[in-house]
Amino acid sequence: MNLVLLFQEDFISGNQVSISGRRLQHIQTVHKASVGDQLTVGLLNQQIGKGTIQSIASDVLTMDIDLLQPPPPALPLTLILALPRPKMLKRIFQTCATMGVKKIILLNSYRVEKSFWSTPVLEEEAIKEQFILGLEQGKDTVLPEVILEKRFKPFVEDTLPGLCKETMALVAHPGSCNPCPEHVKQNTTLVIGPEGGFIPYEIEKLIDAGCAAVHLKERILKVETAIPVILSKLFY
Amino acid sequence: MNLVLLFQEDFISGNQVSISGRRLQHIQTVHKASVGDQLTVGLLNQQIGKGTIQSIASDVLTMDIDLLQPPPPALPLTLILALPRPKMLKRIFQTCATMGVKKIILLNSYRVEKSFWSTPVLEEEAIKEQFILGLEQGKDTVLPEVILEKRFKPFVEDTLPGLCKETMALVAHPGSCNPCPEHVKQNTTLVIGPEGGFIPYEIEKLIDAGCAAVHLKERILKVETAIPVILSKLFY
Repeated sequence: MNLVLLFQEDFISGNQVSISGRRLQHIQTVHKASVGDQLTVGLLNQQIGKGTIQSIASDVLTMDIDLLQPPPPALPLTLILALPRPKMLKRIFQTCATMGVKKIILLNSYRVEKSFWSTPVLEEEAIKEQFILGLEQGKDTVLPEVILEKRFKPFVEDTLPGLCKETMALVAHPGSCNPCPEHVKQNTTLVIGPEGGFIPYEIEKLIDAGCAAVHLKERILKVETAIPVILSKLFY
Repeated sequence: MNLVLLFQEDFISGNQVSISGRRLQHIQTVHKASVGDQLTVGLLNQQIGKGTIQSIASDVLTMDIDLLQPPPPALPLTLILALPRPKMLKRIFQTCATMGVKKIILLNSYRVEKSFWSTPVLEEEAIKEQFILGLEQGKDTVLPEVILEKRFKPFVEDTLPGLCKETMALVAHPGSCNPCPEHVKQNTTLVIGPEGGFIPYEIEKLIDAGCAAVHLKERILKVETAIPVILSKLFY
């Protein structure tokens, strides 16, 4: 927790907050903070700043806070992922929030198991929980948005061309001819397939919709590894 | 499993192997392969090639194999990690094997919890299990090597300067002045700290030993995310 994320309901006065539960426990056991210590804080979807601990007990902590700076810039990216398996999805939500992704579209594809769509990991509160952990890690406050697209063909035919338009639109596809671009400044649409990859029909449809197929190295990466590797090349 | 990793004990004749257990189950349920199908195979620490399925039953599969190509090149890297927490360490072993890291040194540091050193994840067979999963993912055959260094100071004073010599030696340290270099061809020594980072004394010692401190973006990444992000910048 490199930033203590605050919510409107934490406020007990204009610039004082009271927190308990998981955040308090972390501040006590990991930060080992005491009265007078300063912590980096941020208000959900708003600015970041400093909190000075005014009181700390086993069940509650109060801080005076001072919010002065904007959160770090978001990546200019729409990330479209073939729905990953639930266990991996949790970590992917965290990683995306940490790295500054703000728009995630989860897409069906031939190699996505049907059961993945009914995982509790996709419940709104569960998604938010992972995003909060990711934002706390990456010192950010702005919750990403998640859109579920359970039908491949209508999405790729009707919605994707509009998303790709006026962006650099890419689909990561091992074995394609072009390497992944680097240090991209412009708005980007990035599509990443499921374990086992998109099937040829899907790749064709994605290319028809305006995506350029790009590869990394000859090594095939897991989706949860491919995301940081590609975001690193594009934006870091 | 993008490559079926084979072991000497799988051979039933010069070019025929018999496999069962986890690999067979994966070939049946994920690849849904049948007699005559070709799979990418590789022999541990040796060449990669093709296997043609000769017979398949619920408990055993036989393949004729043809090993022709060398495995993909290793990264020219010694990766030195402050020992991560066990749950993360398992995934890190997999990711390292997938991405081509061949030498990993696990180091103690002030912020490494003592209990981490007694995890079963560090047992030889447990490490090998994760490496095998990683190699199967990255289509490689060569097992990485792991060295445990339980004492920070003697390692950094006596061993590290020799490792750094004639390599590009880096320590990833948020807040340092220099950005991480890119597209490195030369031998590299990369040090990554624990969650919460190295303490200032440790950074000083690492710099004295020959490491240059480099940063990524302002966002602080988890160790398991920082590894693919930095390897991507350096080598991908």
